[in-house]
Amino acid sequence: MRILLDVMGGDLSPRELVQGGIDAGRRQGIDILFAGDSAAIRATLAEMNEREGDRFSILPATQTIDMNEPPVRAVRGKRDSSLVKGLLSLKEHEVDAFVSPGNTGAVVAGSIFILGRIAGIPRPAIAASIPTVSGREILILDMGANVDCAPEHLLYFALMGVAYARDVLGIPHPTVGLLNIGTEKGKGNRLNHLAYELLENGPLPFTGNVEGHHLLTERPVDVVVCDGFVGNIFLKTLEGGISTVTGLMQDLIGKSVRAKLGGLLLRPVFSTVHEKLSYHHLGGAPLLGVAGSVVIAHGRSNAQAIASAITVASRAVESRVNETIERGISGWWPDGR
Amino acid sequence: MRILLDVMGGDLSPRELVQGGIDAGRRQGIDILFAGDSAAIRATLAEMNEREGDRFSILPATQTIDMNEPPVRAVRGKRDSSLVKGLLSLKEHEVDAFVSPGNTGAVVAGSIFILGRIAGIPRPAIAASIPTVSGREILILDMGANVDCAPEHLLYFALMGVAYARDVLGIPHPTVGLLNIGTEKGKGNRLNHLAYELLENGPLPFTGNVEGHHLLTERPVDVVVCDGFVGNIFLKTLEGGISTVTGLMQDLIGKSVRAKLGGLLLRPVFSTVHEKLSYHHLGGAPLLGVAGSVVIAHGRSNAQAIASAITVASRAVESRVNETIERGISGWWPDGR
Repeated sequence: MRILLDVMGGDLSPRELVQGGIDAGRRQGIDILFAGDSAAIRATLAEMNEREGDRFSILPATQTIDMNEPPVRAVRGKRDSSLVKGLLSLKEHEVDAFVSPGNTGAVVAGSIFILGRIAGIPRPAIAASIPTVSGREILILDMGANVDCAPEHLLYFALMGVAYARDVLGIPHPTVGLLNIGTEKGKGNRLNHLAYELLENGPLPFTGNVEGHHLLTERPVDVVVCDGFVGNIFLKTLEGGISTVTGLMQDLIGKSVRAKLGGLLLRPVFSTVHEKLSYHHLGGAPLLGVAGSVVIAHGRSNAQAIASAITVASRAVESRVNETIERGISGWWPDGR
Repeated sequence: MRILLDVMGGDLSPRELVQGGIDAGRRQGIDILFAGDSAAIRATLAEMNEREGDRFSILPATQTIDMNEPPVRAVRGKRDSSLVKGLLSLKEHEVDAFVSPGNTGAVVAGSIFILGRIAGIPRPAIAASIPTVSGREILILDMGANVDCAPEHLLYFALMGVAYARDVLGIPHPTVGLLNIGTEKGKGNRLNHLAYELLENGPLPFTGNVEGHHLLTERPVDVVVCDGFVGNIFLKTLEGGISTVTGLMQDLIGKSVRAKLGGLLLRPVFSTVHEKLSYHHLGGAPLLGVAGSVVIAHGRSNAQAIASAITVASRAVESRVNETIERGISGWWPDGR
């Protein structure tokens, strides 16, 4: 297994990202091809007592696509970026998967331009695994690849989500819910009304609407679908809510001796909470529906999150989930759309 | 000041809601007209050593509109519900404001049918005050009155939000942001692109896009606008994120002696966090844009939350914010739309 890691586009330095790649390579026995600034990559390899070779190799790229660049223009204009060169290397089968913590829009646009879509999939979608209190993940898509969706797109998201939940997450019979503002049928906006009808009459195990405040505690379904705008708002708000509580608590704990002592005693509790609810342990969201294994890591990914994203990518490759999705499209929909 | 409290539609019993009304009436010197089951209301009054009179009176209503009833049908069909009778009493100026923790859709539909809209406002909106780490609220609208919005609706939400933030919350020069999935112009879906243009060229102090995970910590603006579907997802997800962390922590603290001791020492910290981030202390969201002061309380409102909602209603009445909105429409928009 050989995975390309784009080390240029994240919020953190290439160094942090290369470290994550080295960790994953060592622990999981995966070959890593680092795409980016050769000197920076080489320096980090040396620092961690590694050298270039089969396990860790370098794909030099001189350009960086920044977080805020308009995606399509960036992908078209920056041919020597780590993102574009990395995707080309995946297309040429020089690697089995591509992992990037960079500009999400650019990864999506680049993947569609360079790799193409899986036949029959109208819109690729980003599938994010959200940690829940139970310790089991819940898969949500789309997390931001498609900001304006037609109802039928949500049906394809459900199909891809079910395939991924079964083949990669190992859930035998994944159920599907529609993210909505109430659980009863008839709740929500026009898109949701129409998507509900399609899902209800479709071939997947659809259980109805689910609401944002129950997902983490009750985990009512395995796969949740929504349009990418709503999905992205959901993910960021959830992160914001969680980090606001933990941040506020940290601040307050620093303010008195009594609280400091309490904080010390509760350290194991805090680390369990962090472990259960932090995105660092999940790290990567696959872009499903493109012809290749592409994993988008969080922009603020540290070494640990990058290593998790590489694990996600290697599982997606091993499970051959893309083949399932392709078969699903030709098999589950009678007209083979 | 006399405020109508609908005690029938919430998740909790009329008793809890009547208690909240009595608290508010006693502390704030407000007359409360309770709408609902006379016997239940009378029993709670007796229990709290109050009797019917000017301060606390009863508007008997035999029907209840449940949380999950289709709003329009419920409002049209249940003429003897506390919700419909309460709104009629507001329309007849027998009370100055209407407070209900009931079916939000039914309160919105009933308010539009019975009270009508403020001239020039195409769509009323629910404005929710969200607590932030700084201790100052941030106002978000729409929180669910309009699940499908045209771009110009968001402009009216901004106008109403600014009027409310200034007149009721006492913020001298409120700024406005658009809830989006990135801060740069050009981010988001079609609705947001068009709304951004309108806001940018409109008469209000618009500062650009804001993201969900920054709102509580950075409080980048005073007023945030979005469509009601997204706003409702945002609010519920935020609540879900916060309660998931605090719930998980509570569970874990119960599990060892060390953690119990830590929890004891941190009790003041936990109560500050709760005080800062709990909806109980805010309690009520005004429905802006209808011809009357209507406040929607959280469906899970306890007595404390109901008392807060009554405070919100009395402030809205005192500030005459509806007159400002009406003047705003005729004054701030040159064509008097």
